Amino acid sequence: MRIAVTGADGFVGRAVVRELGARQAGELLLIDRAFAAAPAHPFVAGDLTDPAVLARACEADALIHLAALPGAAAERDPALSRTINLDLPLALIEGMAGRRLILASSIAVFGGVLPDPVDDATEPRPASVYGTHKRMVELAFADAVRRGAVGGMALRLPGIVARPRGAGGFGSAFLSDLFHAARSGEAYTVPVAREATSWLMSARVCAANLAHALLSDASEGDAVTLPALRVEIGTLTDALGGDFTFEEDERLRAAFGSYPTLLAPRAKALGFRADAGVAALIAAAYD
Amino acid sequence: MRIAVTGADGFVGRAVVRELGARQAGELLLIDRAFAAAPAHPFVAGDLTDPAVLARACEADALIHLAALPGAAAERDPALSRTINLDLPLALIEGMAGRRLILASSIAVFGGVLPDPVDDATEPRPASVYGTHKRMVELAFADAVRRGAVGGMALRLPGIVARPRGAGGFGSAFLSDLFHAARSGEAYTVPVAREATSWLMSARVCAANLAHALLSDASEGDAVTLPALRVEIGTLTDALGGDFTFEEDERLRAAFGSYPTLLAPRAKALGFRADAGVAALIAAAYD
Repeated sequence: MRIAVTGADGFVGRAVVRELGARQAGELLLIDRAFAAAPAHPFVAGDLTDPAVLARACEADALIHLAALPGAAAERDPALSRTINLDLPLALIEGMAGRRLILASSIAVFGGVLPDPVDDATEPRPASVYGTHKRMVELAFADAVRRGAVGGMALRLPGIVARPRGAGGFGSAFLSDLFHAARSGEAYTVPVAREATSWLMSARVCAANLAHALLSDASEGDAVTLPALRVEIGTLTDALGGDFTFEEDERLRAAFGSYPTLLAPRAKALGFRADAGVAALIAAAYD
Repeated sequence: MRIAVTGADGFVGRAVVRELGARQAGELLLIDRAFAAAPAHPFVAGDLTDPAVLARACEADALIHLAALPGAAAERDPALSRTINLDLPLALIEGMAGRRLILASSIAVFGGVLPDPVDDATEPRPASVYGTHKRMVELAFADAVRRGAVGGMALRLPGIVARPRGAGGFGSAFLSDLFHAARSGEAYTVPVAREATSWLMSARVCAANLAHALLSDASEGDAVTLPALRVEIGTLTDALGGDFTFEEDERLRAAFGSYPTLLAPRAKALGFRADAGVAALIAAAYD
């Protein structure tokens, strides 16, 4: 099986490539705009908005689509978000007709003020450019699966940690930066209160979930909300043991620190999983 | 005020142009691919997918967008539906930045199996290409309103009667055809049972609602479900008094004849209305 991975040199992408390699899942084709180092698998360094690159991607039997313009960057440039976060996935849905497509969607589809708990019946009400485009793609994908045009799944990813420092365009960057600060021993001012809560997942578990979606036979039209670990920030910083102070930014608290209980029975029944606890999350995040 | 109307020579479009003319709402610009007769207002006969036509439309201070590829036609050609029912409205949302846009959405966003009652909290779960694209546009419009990029509203239209005979591409055409059959005295086989229920609105009331949305100052991000008249088909055919027999097509019953109670308090609070009853609906439909 030929498996293409877009955004393959990104933070999640590298974990996915490692996971697929370890599972000997098939012949990989890595696609990204650029690669920091020459990868161990065949690759295409180019932009998916280039039709030739898109065509190469769509030669695969199965594709995991991770490339995206992150949330804060999308909010600054809605037109660019449309190109990358809407038009491109729509082109992949069409281009992967008759085969298997795994789309990385996002809990950003749920928007600002969430009901408690959030479960499989919660209506997505996006409140950002990024969340809106992700939700639009989920709907287009569901319709394509309904028509039998394409197979696969769209998975809603929670906050993935620990992204590398300085990964641009993520409003949620602080959730990763506190891992780095703790490890390096730097003092770090957390921009939400200790009581703030987030839905987190290590890149390792995220990659295992994406690989599971790719290699399963099931197709799901409706997007699948992954079963993330809900963490109180104070619990996390205590476990990390760094030098933390807290100074709340209300906007960041509202967007990334106000997550209620998450129930994801559908995802669990499909074989997806969360990190087992805070200690496991930290160990995997430092992986 | 310069007001553009797309789909202006269509069935709903003509009613809207009459209504806006009667209200002396402003200087009208009618846009459609072709006009059956020279209109009484300035017009552009051309395709909105032509950038020059789109640019003319977007010179207006306010625009009512009615042009669409109907449901059955969209299901036959998803790629064409994407162009007309998705890309085109997205271009209008961008092109009408800073001004007022009224989008005709559709109860098709609710999809197949509806809860009872449907109300303002019902989650749209589209089950057709047409409904999917309409819902995607609703989300994009809501996001643009949230960002202050555009003003206006998206209105979910129910079944509008009585469309002219032979209007192509509407799976719901029978709902209009029974009006024509009754008037002409022809025998007509209704493709749903007497007990089937539909949400209907006369073109006259629909036009009044669209004009109301255009001329109000309110902007609503979330799409507004209009307060349609829920009619049992047997009640309607009895009131029409034609020569009817009933032979149910399960697919049509599921798609257009299984509508539960509809509660639309939000639309009513905004000043939108339904036809007053079956007699009023019939009188207005024969208008």
